[in-house]
Amino acid sequence: MTQTHDSSIAPGSSTLGVEIPQVTARAKVLGRALYAGDLKVAGMLHGKVLRSPYAHARIVSIDTTAARALPGVKAVLTGEDAPAQLWGVHHKERAVLAKGVVRFCGEEVAAVAAVSEEIARDALDLIQVEYEELPAILSVEEAMDEEAPPVHPGRANNIGHEIEFARGDVEAGFAAAHLIHEATYTTHSQYPGYMEPMATVAAPDPDGRLVLWTSTQAVNLVRMQVAATLGLPVSRVRVVQATTGGGFGGKIVEDDNQLVAGLLALKTMRPVRLVNSRLEDFQACCASVPERITLKLGMDRDGLIVAKEVRIVAECGAYAGLAGDVMHVSAMRSDNMHRNPNVRSHATLYYTNNPPRGAFRGFGGTQMQFALNSHIHTMAQQLGLDPVLVHERNALRAGEVSVHGWQIGSTGLVECLQQATEAIGWAEKRLRPKDTGVKRRGVGMAAAMHVSGNRTIGNWDGSTVIVKINEDGRVFIISGECDMGQGASTMISQIVAHELALPLAHVFVVPPDTDVAPVAVGTLASRVTMSAGNAAIVAGRKAREALFALAAPRWGVAPEALSIGGGAVFVTAQPEQRATLAELARQSVWRHDGGGIQVEGRWDPKTVMHDDALFGNIAAAYSYAAQAVEVEVDTETGRVTVLDSYVADDCGKALNPIAIHGQTNGATVQAFGWALYEQLHYDESGRLANGNFADYTMATADAVPMLRGGFVESMDPNGPYGAKGASETAILPGAPAIANAVEDAVGIRIRDLPITPEKVLAALRARKQEEARDA
Amino acid sequence: MTQTHDSSIAPGSSTLGVEIPQVTARAKVLGRALYAGDLKVAGMLHGKVLRSPYAHARIVSIDTTAARALPGVKAVLTGEDAPAQLWGVHHKERAVLAKGVVRFCGEEVAAVAAVSEEIARDALDLIQVEYEELPAILSVEEAMDEEAPPVHPGRANNIGHEIEFARGDVEAGFAAAHLIHEATYTTHSQYPGYMEPMATVAAPDPDGRLVLWTSTQAVNLVRMQVAATLGLPVSRVRVVQATTGGGFGGKIVEDDNQLVAGLLALKTMRPVRLVNSRLEDFQACCASVPERITLKLGMDRDGLIVAKEVRIVAECGAYAGLAGDVMHVSAMRSDNMHRNPNVRSHATLYYTNNPPRGAFRGFGGTQMQFALNSHIHTMAQQLGLDPVLVHERNALRAGEVSVHGWQIGSTGLVECLQQATEAIGWAEKRLRPKDTGVKRRGVGMAAAMHVSGNRTIGNWDGSTVIVKINEDGRVFIISGECDMGQGASTMISQIVAHELALPLAHVFVVPPDTDVAPVAVGTLASRVTMSAGNAAIVAGRKAREALFALAAPRWGVAPEALSIGGGAVFVTAQPEQRATLAELARQSVWRHDGGGIQVEGRWDPKTVMHDDALFGNIAAAYSYAAQAVEVEVDTETGRVTVLDSYVADDCGKALNPIAIHGQTNGATVQAFGWALYEQLHYDESGRLANGNFADYTMATADAVPMLRGGFVESMDPNGPYGAKGASETAILPGAPAIANAVEDAVGIRIRDLPITPEKVLAALRARKQEEARDA
Repeated sequence: MTQTHDSSIAPGSSTLGVEIPQVTARAKVLGRALYAGDLKVAGMLHGKVLRSPYAHARIVSIDTTAARALPGVKAVLTGEDAPAQLWGVHHKERAVLAKGVVRFCGEEVAAVAAVSEEIARDALDLIQVEYEELPAILSVEEAMDEEAPPVHPGRANNIGHEIEFARGDVEAGFAAAHLIHEATYTTHSQYPGYMEPMATVAAPDPDGRLVLWTSTQAVNLVRMQVAATLGLPVSRVRVVQATTGGGFGGKIVEDDNQLVAGLLALKTMRPVRLVNSRLEDFQACCASVPERITLKLGMDRDGLIVAKEVRIVAECGAYAGLAGDVMHVSAMRSDNMHRNPNVRSHATLYYTNNPPRGAFRGFGGTQMQFALNSHIHTMAQQLGLDPVLVHERNALRAGEVSVHGWQIGSTGLVECLQQATEAIGWAEKRLRPKDTGVKRRGVGMAAAMHVSGNRTIGNWDGSTVIVKINEDGRVFIISGECDMGQGASTMISQIVAHELALPLAHVFVVPPDTDVAPVAVGTLASRVTMSAGNAAIVAGRKAREALFALAAPRWGVAPEALSIGGGAVFVTAQPEQRATLAELARQSVWRHDGGGIQVEGRWDPKTVMHDDALFGNIAAAYSYAAQAVEVEVDTETGRVTVLDSYVADDCGKALNPIAIHGQTNGATVQAFGWALYEQLHYDESGRLANGNFADYTMATADAVPMLRGGFVESMDPNGPYGAKGASETAILPGAPAIANAVEDAVGIRIRDLPITPEKVLAALRARKQEEARDA
Repeated sequence: MTQTHDSSIAPGSSTLGVEIPQVTARAKVLGRALYAGDLKVAGMLHGKVLRSPYAHARIVSIDTTAARALPGVKAVLTGEDAPAQLWGVHHKERAVLAKGVVRFCGEEVAAVAAVSEEIARDALDLIQVEYEELPAILSVEEAMDEEAPPVHPGRANNIGHEIEFARGDVEAGFAAAHLIHEATYTTHSQYPGYMEPMATVAAPDPDGRLVLWTSTQAVNLVRMQVAATLGLPVSRVRVVQATTGGGFGGKIVEDDNQLVAGLLALKTMRPVRLVNSRLEDFQACCASVPERITLKLGMDRDGLIVAKEVRIVAECGAYAGLAGDVMHVSAMRSDNMHRNPNVRSHATLYYTNNPPRGAFRGFGGTQMQFALNSHIHTMAQQLGLDPVLVHERNALRAGEVSVHGWQIGSTGLVECLQQATEAIGWAEKRLRPKDTGVKRRGVGMAAAMHVSGNRTIGNWDGSTVIVKINEDGRVFIISGECDMGQGASTMISQIVAHELALPLAHVFVVPPDTDVAPVAVGTLASRVTMSAGNAAIVAGRKAREALFALAAPRWGVAPEALSIGGGAVFVTAQPEQRATLAELARQSVWRHDGGGIQVEGRWDPKTVMHDDALFGNIAAAYSYAAQAVEVEVDTETGRVTVLDSYVADDCGKALNPIAIHGQTNGATVQAFGWALYEQLHYDESGRLANGNFADYTMATADAVPMLRGGFVESMDPNGPYGAKGASETAILPGAPAIANAVEDAVGIRIRDLPITPEKVLAALRARKQEEARDA
């Protein structure tokens, strides 16, 4: 692990482990931050998209005559005007604008650019599209039907992706098991619910290059996709991250917004602003991948898992995007938590005519952890064991290697379990007499792991950070990694500030811009603290070395004799021998072979791409979380209320406790929403019925108790100062912890998310009928 | 000298020495280039400046009540609102907005920001300023008067700067001279005449930092000045160069435009656009420094200069700016052309209540070369020698060191003299019988030297260029050096394209932006080809090495066995073993410790700051030019017409012949304008009478013959591929060449520029009267 306490940094000045408000906060709360939708560019047009009202239909004809004739309209584009090149993360199968056929309700059919948003909207109404409705596949069951027509001709059986692997001897494991339990869990799709819908301003620059200011998690991935799809060399595309109001996985590269905006800009040779309305965003964005998981576990008498079989049926909707990768995580990742050597998975991704599903915070972990933690709870009960004990017994320890070759450098899983359950009063509450009144309380817990980075994206999971010291001794940081609100810029600022012993106000992160920032993978897979954090350390130290090399001759000492602190470099043994960073920075410019201090830090984890058998240590570190909740179930209404929640997060080292609490709390609320409230409702034609925040019920303040949480600092050997990723892990245990608590409260097991009052009531009724029958 | 022919670059692909249109041309001719005045930013206000109508006055009171009350006006600022910090390159003596006193007619008194330019203009009319006029010093003669009031209290005798030096034994030199000639020459102030008046959009960014998109030659110098004057750390100021429509020295840091725009933006917290009208630009910009030069030369019988004494009285107007540096060049630079060891100069810069004067293409060289070349012509005639021979005899040769310690690495002066005079038919025309009719023809020539860079700006004259290879194998170049139209971006592009054997369309120079570009001195002192050019070579070669290192293992060869060409790296001996730059660039990202190729090239010349005695080799190279012209003088009207002109330019190596011809021709026309037409006319109160292009008569097409020119490639040992600066030298010999040709044509010597018909007629009359008297 990278040491925090470097003897050349004067004590007392560190910005690490201190509660620091986001460096982006001030601009946001003052209303000055510029989101893509806020931008105005000379000559800018406004774009609007016409979307398919059908889940599946042939486009018979499109008449844009009237729309084109509307004064103020500058372009009306259809599939005929869009590039023939299709797009998609793996399968290139989606058109920028649909051509011939639409495959989901909401698919982009035509796009308009006009001098005002109102005119663009009016023009949409004037576009005459004749559709011939086709039979739509609106469920995985229909997709699996051998008679089902293919969503994509040529994709046999509507399968988008399939994973199958086995390790150890699963049959022998089950044969030796004391207890075998099999059950099926279904998880639903969650809308990312970021505050800022997708937005882009695309413009040709004076050199005819295409520039996009956009809401994104990954400027370089967007550049690649836009270039490849619109037929431009990547160098002819510039992507600048505008202030981004949340991503949650939904703003990687699965959205058509940037492509449509780019196409409109190229066709009009004018800047075009394309901002999704909330309804459009609900229709166009990728919500999470719904999965039906059949889990079979064998345990010995002591709760040790000895065999595991997983079958997953996942749905990607009309286009596969990253859904296959999500399913891959569901199928594999949780295996790496446990000692069990006998695992087998078979996961299949199906196309339907529902909207495309994709990346979402937790990235497949949430789905599987709901099943696994529900399962462990159930089996522990059957074995008469405390599920916490079962988790502990199975947990891999630091230094061990998992069944898939993951090297567990650090793990605070056991400590997380202890911290969370202790905080919630687990020991007493679990054993207290069951409530018998209308409102019944119960406790539940769950545990999970996540990655910090993931080499399977490509054989580079590193990052590059440039540190530039200005003549005032302040520092600019240039990186291509995006901050969507989660705090990447704050984290990088803290690290560079720490290494140079500067106040945070003296470092400034330049927003990602593909023209000038080093290539970056982007903010996904909880990789930025690990990779960009380590790169920032390298860069910060290089800058410090450069300052020391410059300063040492002033006093005729070796660089090793120097310290940095209080905005100055000084002789450690004679602190009155000092020079401010500003003095040194000016000296670094104005001298022979000068030009200033501008250094580059690179870091890439010593991880590997998994091999063909899916074996290999893909991440530099693995983070863990455990959550314990207390719920109250109203047996008359079926309503579940979370009364208390405590998430213990093994983030390695809490570089900024307040930021991690923020992430943990946000993840917890998002998990509450998924477990209890949020649900995308479609009518029988596949049309979204609740694409707005009034009807799509995210957890509001009254649905959330005062959230509690704590850290376990497992000090990862690869992490920057021991830190690991801390934005995704905390979402994983929420749903199963609640499901387990509901079971504890009222004795019913809900395996089908969300846990709605209707389902609770139905389960209670069913049990009553069973009890009546049995009686 | 840096070799062009690197054996690892495949032949036939070089972009060097080829006629290449400016890489910025397409955007300009299509009207897409964004000059600062073209920018529109959300919420942008428009600024206007109220200027003093008096050359010298006390500001008794300013009433802004009515202006502030005008709807749409967002700020009305006066000296009271401006920072107390004064500004100026050396003497901090000028207020952003005048306080208490105005010192020249046109000085900034108040500034308005309003929602439209019209409202801002109307608001100016509503500002009531009460002035108490003070006696104005409108000439150097008045300034020198011992009784004269000081323009700046505390600056004794109105002296802004004074230089005095002597080397060798000047008295002994004159004592030994065969011929001594002394005369006084006066040169006038020339308006830079760029097509784009000064323009800035200043805006607070979301973090409250001040951003300026501005027309400039030097983004870092602007950042420094704006930060220091407005009281911000440099890191809180970002300067981005907008497309810049010419500079000619006038857009370094002597203009108040950026400071006023910045102040308005900070006060309103809104973006503010401040674009000078042409009249305002005439009033506000720095025209060149007028000098009165008394030159005394002693020569031996053969025309060898044996002693030189220079006395200069220069005028900086109300604020000194860079005028002292300009005068310094006038006083010293020409000494370095000649073998003469005995030199003495005394130069004094005076304040007046005229507008500030400052940097201008040629930077003091034009003034002195007018005197020196006129003088040499006159003395050669007196000695019965061809002035070309006199120039040749005196010229220092390559490898020699000048009287002030300048190391002449290369010189093509003699070849320039030969080329220019041969082209013009010097030998015959000089000796042909004199015309006797109304229109009389004559030939004249002159020669000059200039620097390529100048370390006296600060003890760093280097440059940093970043080369970034994108995944399509194309290249971005990041540098802080500005292209104002002269071709810096084209030059850097050519060099990087050459080193990577790429077509020019595959390299792209990112416009200078202080946030992300390495620190740069800026485009002045003809330094960019030398310093940025060499840095580009270093960066280009580093990038090539990185590509070779990446490619070599593919074929198990050493990097030395590889070549680059046609967008690919290949085994020199087996060209079918090849990988495209795009393949390699992608490999450079997606591999262990990847992240792409982004390399930095730095270069700083091995020059020195001159010592206290002004001795030392300040520039990496010295460029030379000679010009020969044929004129026709109409003895009835006094009109001088240039019939033919040939400039031979020793640019070291013509990296882009068409660009250098463009620079040479532009400089030649600017010299014609200065010599014959342009003149700033002030009325008796110091008010500019001809601040527009109708009345300020720059040379138009009908005043210019088909210009001719050629290169002398002296291949400088320090230059990139032998090249030296090529934008300024060619302006130096124009005026004296014309004056000498006039003398040749009609026998009159005009020592007072410009050579107007009135002066010619007056001189002809005077000579006629003299002849009549003598007869």
